[in-house]
Formats: sequence, structure tokens, C-alpha cells
Amino acid sequence: MTPPEAPSPVPHVVVVGGGFGGLAAVKALRRVPVRITLIDRRNFHLFQPLLYEVATATLSPADITEPLRTLVKSRGNCRVLMGEVTRVDVEEQRIILRAEQISYDYLVLATGFRNHYRGNDAWAPLAPGLKTIEDSLEIRARFLRAFEQAEWELDESRRREMLTFIVVGAGSTGMELAGALSETVRRVMNHDFRTVRPEEARIILVEMSAQVLPGLPPNLAERARKQIEDLGVEVRTEARLTELNGDGAAIDGKRFPRATVFWAAGVRGTRVAEDLGAPLDRAGRVVVDPDCTVPGRREVFVIGDLARFEQDGRVVTGVAPAAIQMARHAARCIRRDLDGKSRKPFEYFDKGMAATIGRSAAVARAGRVQVSGFPAWVVWVVLHLIYLVGFRNRVSVAVQWFTAWVLGKKGVRLIGEPWVPATDGSEEIT
Amino acid sequence: MTPPEAPSPVPHVVVVGGGFGGLAAVKALRRVPVRITLIDRRNFHLFQPLLYEVATATLSPADITEPLRTLVKSRGNCRVLMGEVTRVDVEEQRIILRAEQISYDYLVLATGFRNHYRGNDAWAPLAPGLKTIEDSLEIRARFLRAFEQAEWELDESRRREMLTFIVVGAGSTGMELAGALSETVRRVMNHDFRTVRPEEARIILVEMSAQVLPGLPPNLAERARKQIEDLGVEVRTEARLTELNGDGAAIDGKRFPRATVFWAAGVRGTRVAEDLGAPLDRAGRVVVDPDCTVPGRREVFVIGDLARFEQDGRVVTGVAPAAIQMARHAARCIRRDLDGKSRKPFEYFDKGMAATIGRSAAVARAGRVQVSGFPAWVVWVVLHLIYLVGFRNRVSVAVQWFTAWVLGKKGVRLIGEPWVPATDGSEEIT
Repeated sequence: MTPPEAPSPVPHVVVVGGGFGGLAAVKALRRVPVRITLIDRRNFHLFQPLLYEVATATLSPADITEPLRTLVKSRGNCRVLMGEVTRVDVEEQRIILRAEQISYDYLVLATGFRNHYRGNDAWAPLAPGLKTIEDSLEIRARFLRAFEQAEWELDESRRREMLTFIVVGAGSTGMELAGALSETVRRVMNHDFRTVRPEEARIILVEMSAQVLPGLPPNLAERARKQIEDLGVEVRTEARLTELNGDGAAIDGKRFPRATVFWAAGVRGTRVAEDLGAPLDRAGRVVVDPDCTVPGRREVFVIGDLARFEQDGRVVTGVAPAAIQMARHAARCIRRDLDGKSRKPFEYFDKGMAATIGRSAAVARAGRVQVSGFPAWVVWVVLHLIYLVGFRNRVSVAVQWFTAWVLGKKGVRLIGEPWVPATDGSEEIT
Repeated sequence: MTPPEAPSPVPHVVVVGGGFGGLAAVKALRRVPVRITLIDRRNFHLFQPLLYEVATATLSPADITEPLRTLVKSRGNCRVLMGEVTRVDVEEQRIILRAEQISYDYLVLATGFRNHYRGNDAWAPLAPGLKTIEDSLEIRARFLRAFEQAEWELDESRRREMLTFIVVGAGSTGMELAGALSETVRRVMNHDFRTVRPEEARIILVEMSAQVLPGLPPNLAERARKQIEDLGVEVRTEARLTELNGDGAAIDGKRFPRATVFWAAGVRGTRVAEDLGAPLDRAGRVVVDPDCTVPGRREVFVIGDLARFEQDGRVVTGVAPAAIQMARHAARCIRRDLDGKSRKPFEYFDKGMAATIGRSAAVARAGRVQVSGFPAWVVWVVLHLIYLVGFRNRVSVAVQWFTAWVLGKKGVRLIGEPWVPATDGSEEIT
């Protein structure tokens, strides 16, 4: 099947992925004489930096998502299609979906990262990562369910085992998740249960390398570690998860029976990168040319997390500002092509980074300025509210945060379940 | 395993189900010298009357739920346990869960209704009902996905088939669902798509009996029918769904290929009713004695939807006020037992009913007063906000409604999916 639109004299730009990069590309191409097709397998943009807030029952999925059709509908030269790209055919300049295929003049690939278990694929169902809304709801359900099950348990040592949570990986995702889990335990769980006491819960953050937040200067990382330990999180650097099965886990051989494990230790470029015939780095990212295109394929841009771009000997990290800057660069290249001008190389402007640790602490870096503690947390909140896409969400999230912060209360503690059709025979009771 | 609490000299009341009835029972027993265990298979109270708003992408699950532990925690004589009752043993006075059992002195059974397909269990996966949060998210996903798929389709007549939605059953749930679906199409979908036009969508409401809202006086039902037809819903009374499979459905033999079907045609008492050794009516409800107990089992109360109670020759309908009144009655009976007084029979005070039809129309009845149209809608909104349990939710829902009504906009259009663990091998791209 071909796309339901008449052939057009202007070039066709296909953008795959409705994350920060894909949306910024659509926006930057708004006044360029092209027609755009934006394709995503989901019908919404996801504000990934706040996924951990959904996982820890502070925010709802609707707070950190916005329908792509709302975000793009006023853009006259772009149509939105929901679909799953199964293959890219760079020779024929087309993408192949389940039942359809679409030809492109330019391709902007912005499909990002997926969870990666470093050779332990069997761990995937046992240790949910934090890349999708469903991941975050699964983490939330496992976290809350552990408390509900412990509430039935008479034996304190067994309760302590059931309430052991291991977060693997102390990058910003792992830090944010561990910090928020610890705060939820301290601020919410202590009011909620009769048998379970909050001090029975234990949150262990496991990191392979020698410091938390491996990308950061050691002194700032040290301050972050101090802050998260103050929240009650046990940090174990130079440590590894060595075992994981239905009965529990082990860290460097030491067993933690009945523990619940969450995965923040690795991501990898989405599979479609392999179709491009381009070199990939160890993380499955496409090593791009200076103009963010695939070597030898001037019409195929790879942007955002999926692109490996080096500047001054350092790899540009996978953060939203990088994806947005690459998207704008791709749009500029396309415009210059149409104007008959030569392309310029991409230059990344590093705005810094911020990672939050619980509800009023963080570390942030902008250029050579480093802040930590409450001032960094304010920076983090402001940055995230500015970037949060939909207006409705921005208000809703601000209200929820403010309430949670002032009242020390967490909001959305529902344990979701996959839909199972209810028949008379199999219906469960209660 | 026995419950983790020491034996107590006061009677143990086990309440099963955290809906309107169960919660009202806990509240009414607050100052009665008993200890209470509230058991539910979910960790939240669900405001069922607004489930259709989640299904039609106006509200989020968090808007119409509240953690049971938030609602009950201040009640000193009640503990909350999450668990699934698999059987009631009325002889031994205990309930059996998956791995645990709990003895009771009094049992208050408030487990309500489940979806019922009237001998067509195979239809369950094809036509989601509207009893759980997962049901409503499944309806939402199917509704939105139909539009996303139609957007790919070039052929208009095939698009019209793909955009045919059949709601089976024109009770208040079916009316509310059909009306809200139609409004979503008219107010949202027309801005969102390029290929799909809103007039290509068709919403058919199928009802077996001769009028919509079968419980209501015919003249009021006629006004409701007029209002929902004005919203663009095709109403077919004295009609039946005769076929349903993966390719579509049929109404009285007429085929609707590619149609999406939602089920609001039947509910039935939860299975646990069968364990009581008591007579059940055709809907699987327990025919209770005048004091709302199982005949011959003075210590087993059945309240809410699961109870069949007749007053002045009419069956008390399954609405929240009935469940709440029965709960209070059960609490009064228990107190009178403890005081050595004799029980009084339950008397139902009928407050009337209200059903909404879209965003500014409704029908309502209170005693002999009948209203329809906008005034009835105002009554409906006020009633529902008053009953909506948590304070946070009340504000959030009011804001969402107001925004949706003023701006003609619908909010929460995310298509959710069941969680599938992501491994490198099976990961889907885009």
C-alpha cells in the first residue's frame, strides 16, 4: 500500500520517531518547501526525563505525554501516521512497515534507545527498565505490590527480604529512580501500612564503575552520592548484579532472596540502525558524518540518542538538547540543499546537565558552573517545566509536584494490570 | 497462613470489596467495637460511574481512583489487605485467598458485578466491557487505534467500515459511552486527521428492548433517545448483536465488516455468590433476607450490586446510593447485635437517577420530578462531583471537565499497551 497522498513536486521528508529529535525536526522544517511524514509506533510524545516519576507513583502517564496529533496538527506540511517501521531500505529509499511502505527523498531517523541487558536477555522480564510508559507502570506495580505482599507477612526478616529493591545502574536514570523510590517509602508508605514499617524497606543502587553519575566530574558525583545516601539509599560502586531469577538476585555473589530489581544499567540503539549499512559503535549507535548523515547516504540523517557524534574528542551525550540541536541542523542541511548551497557541519552547544536526587536535591552543571542541593533542584524543576511539551501537562505536573512537595504526599498509587477479557468462566472474584 | 494480627476479644468483620458498599461499611463501623479487615484484589477504590470518561480519553485512571490505604488509613479499627478471594466457606466462617485464609465473625460481601456475555463467552476478547480500569483503557485503545488505522486507508468505503463502532446495550453505561464516543469524534477527531473525516465515523447503539434506558419511564427515555440521536448516534431498539468475530459483527443478521464492538449489555454477580448456598436470581445476585443477610446465615451480609433486594415489589437497582445505604444498614445490624437488640429490616430510600448524554445533556429523575437536557446535566455533574471520593480527584476532574467543555477539547488520547519486556532480540523498532 502506498501512502494516501498524491505525488507532490516537493521533496518528501520522512521522520521516524516522535521524541524530542523527531518533533524538533518537524518544527524546524515547517517553512521549508517539503512535505513531511512523521511516523511513530505510539500516538504520543513521551517526556522521558520524567518517566521515573510515573514509576514512583507521583505522576500519571497523561502528565508526561501529549498526543502527536495535538503537537503537529497545525503544521501544514506534515502528516502524522502511527505505524511500526520494521526495516529501512536505504538502496530503494523507502521504509517498510508491517503492511505498508513509504518512499522518501530524505529520511530523519530519530528512534532513540531501547533497554539493553548486556548479554542477559533473560533478565528483561525480571528487571523492567525505564524507556516506555509501560515500563514505568510495571516498575510502579512491582514496587507497590511488594509492599502489599509484605503486609501479609508475619516474619520480619522475610518482610525485609520482600522489601529489598535493587536499582542497577547509577546514571541519571538510576539515581533519579532510586532517590524517588526512597522518598516514596519515607513519605508515603509509613502512613499506609500496619504491619510493614518503612525502615524495613531497603533500596540498593548498584554501579559498575567507581562513581555514581559516571559522566560527571568526580567532585560533583561525590556530592550527588552524599545526597542520595542521606535519602537512605545504599550505594555500591564497582559492584555488579551477578544473578537474577524468580527467587531473587545477587550482587557480586551475595544473595538477596525475594528482592525486586529495576534496570537502569544499559541502553542500546534501536534495531533499525543495523539496516543502514553504516558502522555502529558498541552501544549500537550509528557513527555519523559531520553533517549528522550516514556515511555515503547524504539523504539519511540520524539524530538524537541513535547518533554517535564526536566533538573535540568527546561523544555528545544522549540528552534532549542534543537531539533538538541535531534536528535543527538536519533541517538546515535540507534547506541548504534545496537552495543549492553546501551543507555545514553540525556543532553541538553543550548547555550542561542536571540530575535530581529526591524531592529537593539535585546536581547541575552548566559550562564550568556546578551547583548541588536545593539550588540545583530548582534549576532542574525549571528546566523540566520549560521543556515539558503540552501546556496542560505543564500545569498539571506543576500542581502535582507542588502538592507532593508541600504535603509530602504521593499521588498515583494504583497498581495496574494488563487487560484480560472477562468471561464468566475465568472471571476472578473479589 | 493466618493474618498477621493477634486474636482480639472484639468480633472480626471481614469486608470484601472496596467499592462504594465496602467503603461505606468500613466507615459506618468506625465507632463500633469490632476489628475490620477490608480485602480487595486491587489497591484502589474505583469510581465506576466515570469509567466511560476514561474509555473516551477525557479522564485518566488516576482521576477516578483513590488508593484504599489513603481512604481507610485513619480508621483505627480497620486494616487493609490486597488479595483475591477464591472461595467463601460459610460453614467454617472463613474466606480463602490464594495462599491465605481469614476467619470472620461477620462477613460483608460487596464484590459487585462483572461483565456477562449471555452465553457468548467467546465475545469477551472481541468486545470489551466497562467494569475495570483495564476495560476502559482497552476500549480507549481500540477506539483510537481504529482512527489511526483508517488514516492509512485510501478507500473511503473501507474507512467508513473501519470507523464503525457498535455499543451493545442502551442502559446508562451504554448511553454514556455512545454519547461520549460521538462527542469525541465530533470535537477532537475532526482536527486531528488528514485523510479521515469525522463524518466517516458511525456510532450505533444496539438495545434488545423497546426503549433506551429500560429502567426509566418511557417519556423520559424518549427524551434521552432524542438527545443522543442529536449527537449523531444511531439508536436501534429491539435489535440484537447476532455475530461477532475478528472480521466484524452483525446486527440482526446485517454484517458490519471491520466494526469495533463495545459491550454494555450485561453484567452478572461475581462468582463468589455461588459459594454462599443461597438462592441466586438470573443475574447471579444473592436473594437476601430483609436484613440484607444470606438466608440462614445471619453473619453474612451481601450488599450493593451483588444483593437482590426487593422493596414494594420492585428490585432495588445497582446504584451507588443503594450500596451505601445497605452498608450502613449492615453496620447498624452488627451494632444492634452487640448491644443485644433485635435487627430491623433494610429500607431503601430511592434518591432517583441521572444519566448523562454527551457533554451538556442528560436525563434525571428524583422522586416524581423529571428533568432533561442541560439542567439534568448540571444535576448529574454536581452529584458525581459530590460522590467522587478523593479531594485531589475532585479538583482534577472538575478542571478536566471544565476545560473539555469550554474548549471542546479532549485530553488523554494515549493508546496504552500491555507491558512486554524488551530484550534485544524481540525489541520492536521505531
